[in-house]
Amino acid sequence: MPRIDLNSDLGESYGQWRLGDDETMLGLVSSANIACGFHAGDPSTLLDTCRAAAKRDVRIGAQVGYQDLAGFGRRFIDVTPAELTAEVIYQIGALEGLARVAGSTVAYVKPHGALYNAVVHHRDQARAVVAAVRAYDDSLPVLGLPGSVLLDEAERAGLQVVAEAFADRAYTPEGALVSRREPGAVLHDPDTVARRVLRMVTEGVVTAHDGSEVSVAAQSVCIHGDSPAATAMAVAVRALLDAENIGIEAFV
Amino acid sequence: MPRIDLNSDLGESYGQWRLGDDETMLGLVSSANIACGFHAGDPSTLLDTCRAAAKRDVRIGAQVGYQDLAGFGRRFIDVTPAELTAEVIYQIGALEGLARVAGSTVAYVKPHGALYNAVVHHRDQARAVVAAVRAYDDSLPVLGLPGSVLLDEAERAGLQVVAEAFADRAYTPEGALVSRREPGAVLHDPDTVARRVLRMVTEGVVTAHDGSEVSVAAQSVCIHGDSPAATAMAVAVRALLDAENIGIEAFV
Amino acid sequence: MPRIDLNSDLGESYGQWRLGDDETMLGLVSSANIACGFHAGDPSTLLDTCRAAAKRDVRIGAQVGYQDLAGFGRRFIDVTPAELTAEVIYQIGALEGLARVAGSTVAYVKPHGALYNAVVHHRDQARAVVAAVRAYDDSLPVLGLPGSVLLDEAERAGLQVVAEAFADRAYTPEGALVSRREPGAVLHDPDTVARRVLRMVTEGVVTAHDGSEVSVAAQSVCIHGDSPAATAMAVAVRALLDAENIGIEAFV
Amino acid sequence: MPRIDLNSDLGESYGQWRLGDDETMLGLVSSANIACGFHAGDPSTLLDTCRAAAKRDVRIGAQVGYQDLAGFGRRFIDVTPAELTAEVIYQIGALEGLARVAGSTVAYVKPHGALYNAVVHHRDQARAVVAAVRAYDDSLPVLGLPGSVLLDEAERAGLQVVAEAFADRAYTPEGALVSRREPGAVLHDPDTVARRVLRMVTEGVVTAHDGSEVSVAAQSVCIHGDSPAATAMAVAVRALLDAENIGIEAFV
Repeated sequence: MPRIDLNSDLGESYGQWRLGDDETMLGLVSSANIACGFHAGDPSTLLDTCRAAAKRDVRIGAQVGYQDLAGFGRRFIDVTPAELTAEVIYQIGALEGLARVAGSTVAYVKPHGALYNAVVHHRDQARAVVAAVRAYDDSLPVLGLPGSVLLDEAERAGLQVVAEAFADRAYTPEGALVSRREPGAVLHDPDTVARRVLRMVTEGVVTAHDGSEVSVAAQSVCIHGDSPAATAMAVAVRALLDAENIGIEAFV
Repeated sequence: MPRIDLNSDLGESYGQWRLGDDETMLGLVSSANIACGFHAGDPSTLLDTCRAAAKRDVRIGAQVGYQDLAGFGRRFIDVTPAELTAEVIYQIGALEGLARVAGSTVAYVKPHGALYNAVVHHRDQARAVVAAVRAYDDSLPVLGLPGSVLLDEAERAGLQVVAEAFADRAYTPEGALVSRREPGAVLHDPDTVARRVLRMVTEGVVTAHDGSEVSVAAQSVCIHGDSPAATAMAVAVRALLDAENIGIEAFV
Repeated sequence: MPRIDLNSDLGESYGQWRLGDDETMLGLVSSANIACGFHAGDPSTLLDTCRAAAKRDVRIGAQVGYQDLAGFGRRFIDVTPAELTAEVIYQIGALEGLARVAGSTVAYVKPHGALYNAVVHHRDQARAVVAAVRAYDDSLPVLGLPGSVLLDEAERAGLQVVAEAFADRAYTPEGALVSRREPGAVLHDPDTVARRVLRMVTEGVVTAHDGSEVSVAAQSVCIHGDSPAATAMAVAVRALLDAENIGIEAFV
Repeated sequence: MPRIDLNSDLGESYGQWRLGDDETMLGLVSSANIACGFHAGDPSTLLDTCRAAAKRDVRIGAQVGYQDLAGFGRRFIDVTPAELTAEVIYQIGALEGLARVAGSTVAYVKPHGALYNAVVHHRDQARAVVAAVRAYDDSLPVLGLPGSVLLDEAERAGLQVVAEAFADRAYTPEGALVSRREPGAVLHDPDTVARRVLRMVTEGVVTAHDGSEVSVAAQSVCIHGDSPAATAMAVAVRALLDAENIGIEAFV
């Protein structure tokens, strides 16, 4: 039976502000990228999210980001490598504390938002993230974009790397993501998205936005649940994978 | 040979802003109450402070506080117990992550500022702090004021408690601290302060502000280094204890 | 024709996080209590809200609060009067800048959340708020709870005061609000709420939670729109007032 | 009698953390670039600084920056133009509120730190700053680097622009600043610095780091006071200008 990990961004509420349907998503995914308080997630929200993830045996990953609540971590910040390394360690540690209390642990690290995009190309920041993970616990896998400088540096540093694909994003013929600024970058039809994920898992290919076939060798697929429409897509993806007897299983 | 622990608040710089002479203080104390980023301490500063403490074999304590950079954690905040518990776990975990990378660990927990004062009397917040420590690691000692609700609740919960005295604070005949709002609450003469600490350690007594003798059963003495004058007092305290062959030793 | 002002809390989104249906509420009220960035409201959100209010000729009030995004300004903070005065001036000025760009101005000041509750009784903080308004612009009215220390101090200082009633809150026989911690403190039925507001406006009375009649001399009625149910109530209130030919008009 | 404006960054303390000797600097300069709370400056500090500036008849400028206390506004943040415009308006308005209470007003705008450096080249962010100033008050001058995109855009938008030179920075033969990352970028000798400023004012030239003469047409010279050494330089600059009968006078 083929198997795949499904991951999603969770714990992104903050105080009075709610975001995403975490309860539903935790019933669909095998890995939860939980915010660490820098781009989202107050401690109470994070503790509750860790407890809910632990209860359903969903793996907890530290979704580390820039310190930017106002920008939700989606604005590049030119932090120095030394600052970034310390910030990533701080975030992993904070989430680990909460995960421990919830009876679980931080099982992997995934950068968020603008940091995720930066470390595709920005070698200094990628190295800073890798240095943080390695210093904190060199058995922690790093989840990221295939071909990114992050995964390259993580691999050189001896860390386990996990490549992910995106359920609802359009791909270029080269296997990169179409920029969100271009039309058609994000897919919205639940059935289309579900069938794409099925092909990614069973055939290792996806249809690029020009119609060509691209190889995607992903060990995890990222699905979103930050809007009712996104959650509906996630439900459709999971239903189709279940119907096709694809096992949903964490990579660690 | 009598022994005592000396503790001090460290890692309280933030970004561009420097506070305290941490390097000097780390040469004087056996326990460092390191900020956790909520009232002070950016991640880089905290990592550097953890490394400097580890290098000198000074114990690291998590100095947890209210989330209030503007007020330096010195303003009471009416957080709910559930929020406070999560906030304390978050802070301990964050510092533990940095301490781990520095080759050390969080060895105890001490509340800071307004939280320290609140949990002398505020049972709900005291219980919330205790619940956090217990859930995180029930072998972690709690450092606080003798007679405080915090130490009472910590003891009931089965945690190790460590009572501390203050080198530079005036005492009431009942053994409480004279409020900072009253004249003479803080002592400034290095020799007087050093001699008081010596009597605390060797005789277990201190002269109250009315001239009477009060019993102080402290396992740790808090000294400050947040101004040149405070550092001078700390140096005098340490010199006198050394001259009298009092061992300076962490309580854990 | 009788007239009343309807006010509501708006501009309380923050970055990625949305809260409330501001667009709908701006079609119902005559005064918008717009957040100032301390408890909610990033600058972009606030500018958009000011523009939307100005477009509909809804008055803009500065809803000033404690600096506490994580607690949404709902946790009492023991700030000193001097700090609070400066914080209130800062907030009014910031919102005034945005309101000016939107072609409007700050027309009144209303404390938010825990600050609103504190200044019912806390004379030092009430005076600090009054001192801020008076120093900034002594022609600005202060909106608050009838009988509060805030309105008392504002009146003594020569400021215009505006007393408000709450559409969806239960009252004690003494005319105070039933604490949110007690059952029945918040009313949920749109028709009941609408009829209560109508009686407040036309007869100056409200039925207290023990069934007795209480006098309420309010120049403004606060309605909420921070949830779909709250918005539905607000719509019902406005519809009934319109049907009864009550003019909805700002007090300034 | 020749005249020049001297400007300096002030109000950059935050809560418990002190930075710079504002009192001394206010006795030396004619224009105070006062922080607005985003990179530094809590409201109490800012109000005190506005009052001290007003008392000495020193002009108040809004020193607007990125929202980044941890980085002191020295890290580039990729904010969108719309966000940046709203953030700049918010900051000017907040400081204007405090300046008004102090009996003064915001007389000009100067970007801080990484924003200052960004708008030398980054046209979108430069336009966003200009749009903010223009929308807020199109009679406010903008202070910046000669040749910067900021001053270019401000001029096109019809704003008054004020070019500044730096007392303690090395210049390239092209009249640009030598990057801080290069050796010799910052000058430290008080006499050398004072004589350079004198030549800037009286001859309009400065010796570049290769020994050549460069023209600098500055209406204002920036001096620093954020360290004892910097303050000593500022004192020397002012003393020499006084001795040479150069009038120190705000440009507005």
